[in-house]
Amino acid sequence: MKNYFIARSRRVRSTPYTSRIEKQGVTAYTVYNHMLLPAGFGSLEDSYHHLKEHVQVWDVAGERQVEISGKDSSKLVQLMTCRDLSKSKVGRCYYCPMIDDKAGLINDPVVLKLGEQRWWISIADSDVILFAKGLAIGKNFDVKIFEPDVDILAVQGPKSFKLMEKIFGTKIAEMKFFGFDYFEFAGAKHLIARSGWSKQGGYEVYVENTESGLALYDKLFEFGKEFNVKPGCPNLIERIESALLSYGNDIDNKDNPLECGLDKYVNLDTDVDFLGKEKLKEIKKKGLTKKLMGVTIEAKEINVSKSINLINEKNLKIGELRSGVYSPHFKKVIGIAMMDKPFWEVSQKFKISINDSVLEGKVCDLPFI
Amino acid sequence: MKNYFIARSRRVRSTPYTSRIEKQGVTAYTVYNHMLLPAGFGSLEDSYHHLKEHVQVWDVAGERQVEISGKDSSKLVQLMTCRDLSKSKVGRCYYCPMIDDKAGLINDPVVLKLGEQRWWISIADSDVILFAKGLAIGKNFDVKIFEPDVDILAVQGPKSFKLMEKIFGTKIAEMKFFGFDYFEFAGAKHLIARSGWSKQGGYEVYVENTESGLALYDKLFEFGKEFNVKPGCPNLIERIESALLSYGNDIDNKDNPLECGLDKYVNLDTDVDFLGKEKLKEIKKKGLTKKLMGVTIEAKEINVSKSINLINEKNLKIGELRSGVYSPHFKKVIGIAMMDKPFWEVSQKFKISINDSVLEGKVCDLPFI
Repeated sequence: MKNYFIARSRRVRSTPYTSRIEKQGVTAYTVYNHMLLPAGFGSLEDSYHHLKEHVQVWDVAGERQVEISGKDSSKLVQLMTCRDLSKSKVGRCYYCPMIDDKAGLINDPVVLKLGEQRWWISIADSDVILFAKGLAIGKNFDVKIFEPDVDILAVQGPKSFKLMEKIFGTKIAEMKFFGFDYFEFAGAKHLIARSGWSKQGGYEVYVENTESGLALYDKLFEFGKEFNVKPGCPNLIERIESALLSYGNDIDNKDNPLECGLDKYVNLDTDVDFLGKEKLKEIKKKGLTKKLMGVTIEAKEINVSKSINLINEKNLKIGELRSGVYSPHFKKVIGIAMMDKPFWEVSQKFKISINDSVLEGKVCDLPFI
Repeated sequence: MKNYFIARSRRVRSTPYTSRIEKQGVTAYTVYNHMLLPAGFGSLEDSYHHLKEHVQVWDVAGERQVEISGKDSSKLVQLMTCRDLSKSKVGRCYYCPMIDDKAGLINDPVVLKLGEQRWWISIADSDVILFAKGLAIGKNFDVKIFEPDVDILAVQGPKSFKLMEKIFGTKIAEMKFFGFDYFEFAGAKHLIARSGWSKQGGYEVYVENTESGLALYDKLFEFGKEFNVKPGCPNLIERIESALLSYGNDIDNKDNPLECGLDKYVNLDTDVDFLGKEKLKEIKKKGLTKKLMGVTIEAKEINVSKSINLINEKNLKIGELRSGVYSPHFKKVIGIAMMDKPFWEVSQKFKISINDSVLEGKVCDLPFI
């Protein structure tokens, strides 16, 4: 696949770290929430192996925050997600599929409960702020909604714990997964969560004070030398192996959370009021017609820039591949596919056309690792 | 400025024309409404001169449609825009700044009235569909809202009229600016509007039948040979000279339509009900604190990838440049800037740092041409 340049403009926002990562050798970008998100620092495979062994610093400012505060803030946040937040605690992160009244996914953010009446929704790639504003205006809710100036730095990889402990002390090493707390650095307090878009462990620093954030960025590389720190970004191989879903890639507004295997975040047997609840009950009763599954394909290479049909021996479409990559671990292509009923059984075989060759593959469970 | 590649994935959607424009030599992309928008076919200047003399075909499928139909559709569309649509007519396009309850712009789409209870909102780069859904759910409106499969092909340039007449007959040449009608081609009916994101004249074909659209794409190049047709895309030089505003670049949610010179689309002295109406009245009464203006800068080159501060002789920030480009017509850099009060007077001088040089510029009226 030929490469094309990305055109720059104010509409595709830079981050406070853009000039740093460009000096450090970023090679590709994607656009995420109207912002530059680094998408490569040279070899994808090298970066994958490095991430699984050492520690990387990622400029993921594209993970924007929607801040919702005020008297009706909890009601509004709950209205947008099928996950029951009635027992949620301040200081915790919650992965929350967000759906509309037809139960179609509109985002799958991590929600941070900052206070009893103050929330951050750390979003995937769609303008959740407009949905929240529309609902709040329409329902006459007493809330304040805005996008705060928060630019996340992720520190990911097995050595992230040692590196962060070296900077912030032992307290940060004790933090539990999806917990968050505040830590001082260079004259500013930073919200730091034990989270991130890899399964290799790590933290996300929600930087509100840019000057302090830039100093922290440099400190991470200075103190990280002994841990072989490198700049990085969400890694396609690692995230598919771990089945970290990507909104817009693997799942979208035409899918409901049950089809996407997000059952444990769908709380239908509760009293909480959320959009699409009755619709989801109806879907559950009727049964699903498609389901997100893993697939393996006997191939050495793939570029998925749009859905690719999966065909059975009768040449009927039985599903579509939505993400895929060559995995050095499995020595074949692995991917995430939406399979039609009844073709979602593990070991269902299919054919797929890639670069004019017809290849074979089969369905499997997620995650791969 | 160094060039970077754009990473491809399903989340950054291809269009039906992507494979064609790649064969035709597209060199750069941007992302618009989660979709690839071509941003260059070689030299920007060559493309500019060509657009002003001949005819170009643009893949602007990134201009997505939000379809709103049903009993309360007119009420919902009106609620989202400060432009009075009470006398709007079926078969016409309307440029409609959309604002939230704080009068902040959320988009500046062209609205097409397809029927008394059916509208298309042809959007700039933000998820208007989520705002519309939020409002409709919150207000319990009886509407249907979805993104139809519509991929726009624009035919722009002075020779677009002859080319389109050759394909569709004399009726299309008689269409008035911002009118639209339906035209048959290769077994499908296409909505075609006399519109487009250049001031060189032309049409936008709202393709619903992809197969017919692809045939039309090829026919435009076949029949266009005698008019020197080329593939193209919105041209930065042409659009700044003409002051066609770009949402996200020149204007955003922190601006209101009065600050952006959109006064004639702000109808405060009407009975229609729209968001931000009282807020706009209050703003108008108090007076503006900033205003969008043109600027000229004595320079041969500029790359605006984020706001650049404009400074006065006392080294105070008096405004910010949001878009800019070298204009071969004016033989200097021209741009669009948000100027603070009271520095928005024409011929106000300023200094700007570009690539470590301090250059001089001055404020002027928009448009340039």
